[in-house]
Amino acid sequence: MSFKEGDYVLIVYKEKRYLRKLVKGMSLNVKKEVIKFEDILGKRSGERVGNFLVFSPTLEDLILLGFERKTQIVYPKDAFYIAYKLGLDKSKKVLEFGTGSGAMTSVLSLLAGEVWTYEASESFYKNAKRNWERFGLCENVKAFNIDFKDANVEEEYFDAVFVDVREPWEYLEKVWRALKGGSPCAFVLPTANQVSKLLSSLKDLFGDVEVMEILQRHYKTNPERFRPEDQMVAHTAYLVFCRKII
Amino acid sequence: MSFKEGDYVLIVYKEKRYLRKLVKGMSLNVKKEVIKFEDILGKRSGERVGNFLVFSPTLEDLILLGFERKTQIVYPKDAFYIAYKLGLDKSKKVLEFGTGSGAMTSVLSLLAGEVWTYEASESFYKNAKRNWERFGLCENVKAFNIDFKDANVEEEYFDAVFVDVREPWEYLEKVWRALKGGSPCAFVLPTANQVSKLLSSLKDLFGDVEVMEILQRHYKTNPERFRPEDQMVAHTAYLVFCRKII
Amino acid sequence: MSFKEGDYVLIVYKEKRYLRKLVKGMSLNVKKEVIKFEDILGKRSGERVGNFLVFSPTLEDLILLGFERKTQIVYPKDAFYIAYKLGLDKSKKVLEFGTGSGAMTSVLSLLAGEVWTYEASESFYKNAKRNWERFGLCENVKAFNIDFKDANVEEEYFDAVFVDVREPWEYLEKVWRALKGGSPCAFVLPTANQVSKLLSSLKDLFGDVEVMEILQRHYKTNPERFRPEDQMVAHTAYLVFCRKII
Amino acid sequence: MSFKEGDYVLIVYKEKRYLRKLVKGMSLNVKKEVIKFEDILGKRSGERVGNFLVFSPTLEDLILLGFERKTQIVYPKDAFYIAYKLGLDKSKKVLEFGTGSGAMTSVLSLLAGEVWTYEASESFYKNAKRNWERFGLCENVKAFNIDFKDANVEEEYFDAVFVDVREPWEYLEKVWRALKGGSPCAFVLPTANQVSKLLSSLKDLFGDVEVMEILQRHYKTNPERFRPEDQMVAHTAYLVFCRKII
Repeated sequence: MSFKEGDYVLIVYKEKRYLRKLVKGMSLNVKKEVIKFEDILGKRSGERVGNFLVFSPTLEDLILLGFERKTQIVYPKDAFYIAYKLGLDKSKKVLEFGTGSGAMTSVLSLLAGEVWTYEASESFYKNAKRNWERFGLCENVKAFNIDFKDANVEEEYFDAVFVDVREPWEYLEKVWRALKGGSPCAFVLPTANQVSKLLSSLKDLFGDVEVMEILQRHYKTNPERFRPEDQMVAHTAYLVFCRKII
Repeated sequence: MSFKEGDYVLIVYKEKRYLRKLVKGMSLNVKKEVIKFEDILGKRSGERVGNFLVFSPTLEDLILLGFERKTQIVYPKDAFYIAYKLGLDKSKKVLEFGTGSGAMTSVLSLLAGEVWTYEASESFYKNAKRNWERFGLCENVKAFNIDFKDANVEEEYFDAVFVDVREPWEYLEKVWRALKGGSPCAFVLPTANQVSKLLSSLKDLFGDVEVMEILQRHYKTNPERFRPEDQMVAHTAYLVFCRKII
Repeated sequence: MSFKEGDYVLIVYKEKRYLRKLVKGMSLNVKKEVIKFEDILGKRSGERVGNFLVFSPTLEDLILLGFERKTQIVYPKDAFYIAYKLGLDKSKKVLEFGTGSGAMTSVLSLLAGEVWTYEASESFYKNAKRNWERFGLCENVKAFNIDFKDANVEEEYFDAVFVDVREPWEYLEKVWRALKGGSPCAFVLPTANQVSKLLSSLKDLFGDVEVMEILQRHYKTNPERFRPEDQMVAHTAYLVFCRKII
Repeated sequence: MSFKEGDYVLIVYKEKRYLRKLVKGMSLNVKKEVIKFEDILGKRSGERVGNFLVFSPTLEDLILLGFERKTQIVYPKDAFYIAYKLGLDKSKKVLEFGTGSGAMTSVLSLLAGEVWTYEASESFYKNAKRNWERFGLCENVKAFNIDFKDANVEEEYFDAVFVDVREPWEYLEKVWRALKGGSPCAFVLPTANQVSKLLSSLKDLFGDVEVMEILQRHYKTNPERFRPEDQMVAHTAYLVFCRKII
């Protein structure tokens, strides 16, 4: 399988990564080197083109380099953990709100059988749809441009829920009704104040509570001088997990 | 859907979690409280039984609480990240060696279409098989009780590989041949010396190298006194990612 | 200089450390090995006694292994940073409350010219005094067994303050009056809720605010298998620093 | 005590900090605001000047904002910990090499009675001297512009040593001779390879080995939205501690 016009390609130059759509006549300049996209056509993933390497992008590449962001996205370090933590498989239906830029949706979509996602903002909703369409993701996703507060949802329909809104405590009863008994719930919240408020709102409806953060620390790849990178992302969000009590 | 004899159940008592098989006549004692398993039969996931909560276990519960360990397992914080990082979906075939206790295999199995896993030790191999059978996991997995060195593998068959052996550098050429061009590779290694040696062995065969560690920090769940737990796991393994160059 | 009866000695056996007072007739058993204290008499710091090593203890050894704890102590990783951060030198007078077990006091004492420390609890106060006397520390410290609320302090007397009480916001005006203009202040607080409350109480009185945590991660010392320890302390306290505004 | 011409002043504007020498006619522009230095003359530490705050700088301010750097400095998070860890007090003599930019020297100088520091590079040596002179630091320091290899040092003269050179293993025997028995040693090393090599060189000469890293994570100071900063320093150096065995 070789790259053809219109494909997305991950272009790697030393430690730098670029995601580009292969359009004839276009090229990428890094420092003083150039890669012409027409020289990529017909190449296979993993081939060298001059001092560049070209690869088929993974989902992580698409999210980090290709998704248009109108919101803070759920980073792969968090998203991948959450998706599994929700106990998903292809027999499961998962609820998400808000959709945001659609990064988490695309992760949930791979593990679950069915994803329903709600986004109140029209601009975010359209952006998320464009992100999925651009990369052919999220075929098993039903996306709604309404606040989940106003959603019409069958009781006990979902096997899991992922919540990424500023005031999740306002949605807890509705979430509770939408879930089957014992279903795992995940929340991402940037501040300690929000976590504290959410924790004090969970009681009686949700149990088995866990709060955590996931930190990712990259290392330099010189084998003679193995050491961490100088800088790292110190915080994206606190993760809160619990399960519906009945 | 309610619990019946023979099911596995996650029993939660305050902040403690137990995974048990529901066998009549058995019970669980925590401090001075008792839960009889016959009182769980007929209950639904999420119900209370006295001061206990009972839930259907997720894959993470099974791995952390149910898997018999004959080796250091790949922890969920690492396993979940790796599985997605490998760019898997149901159209993809993934190679793993060594199988170890089979925790990572069960994670790969959910995302990939097909998993081939190799384990040189007979005792580890049998243990991994028992872990999967006990919990009904890994139907799309072909497990082999041989060292991957001795495996007979079609060239360019796999879309991704996960390597968890002490001396991965000895396998690099064979891994390279088994993978399609550009395929993602993941390695877990406990020591910096191993990472350094692996990094110096990758060149020419594999590119786009990343090294990292994933840290998971839990918090106490009292909303009035929000703070991290006193202790955390400081290290499981360094993660090394790269892709096949052709 | 050699060890004599009554001295404190740090005894190291492989990776284990013990602080003991040299009393004739006493001994230490570690696994199946014994070190008799009379065999340490006359030895110099750094000598071997069988498979043990004996050293003169540092302040950190005394705090971690010798101080009787009636409270959570300020750990060296935090205490050492705080002491310098306060801008101390031998010309400076520093205020501390509460004294707790006296660990932080003994650190401040080394850098500052004069330390005044207040402790409301009689039991803590007496314990701290015993800790200092046992090890000959804190000669430049004036310790008071009263709540700092009830202290009679000259205005603008101190060059710096260290606060380790549960509700520091109740003391802010008094602290402000006791300090010279621009003086650095440090607070340790275990929970995010306390930090949040303190931050909202500082305004107008204190500026140049910083909040941080200090994490210490130990590594195994095998040169062939260099890697972090499996476990680490995940949290002791949040540190808050600011300076008096006039 | 009020600011006068020639003094160094820490100028704080919101979360930004600047260290400046008070020279008439000069001023500082931050965004669209200006502070004229002649308006600072006669003000006391902690006063407001428009929307700015002015403070007497602490040692940390001088190191982070005022020291000219010709080398990677030892950061305060590491330097403060190391200085105490060395068991220093005013009765102790400490050895340092290489001097680098002189930041660590200025920290050691506060706790120890006497500091001897060696720097092979003339440019670094002169820069360190200028840093100390500019801020009136390090009166108890003897600085030498030679490689410690070539130093003429009395046996068992020092109570502690701090080593910050690329290949510390080449100096171990000389360090050993210069130290009193049992004396604490500290090394900073950026890479895991160096730590591994140092560890395998210590045996027989040095014992009670510890390796660690110190991480500092800052938080935003908004009390309604308490959360870590987005980015942090991920690595400065590994710290290695041991003591001389005799």
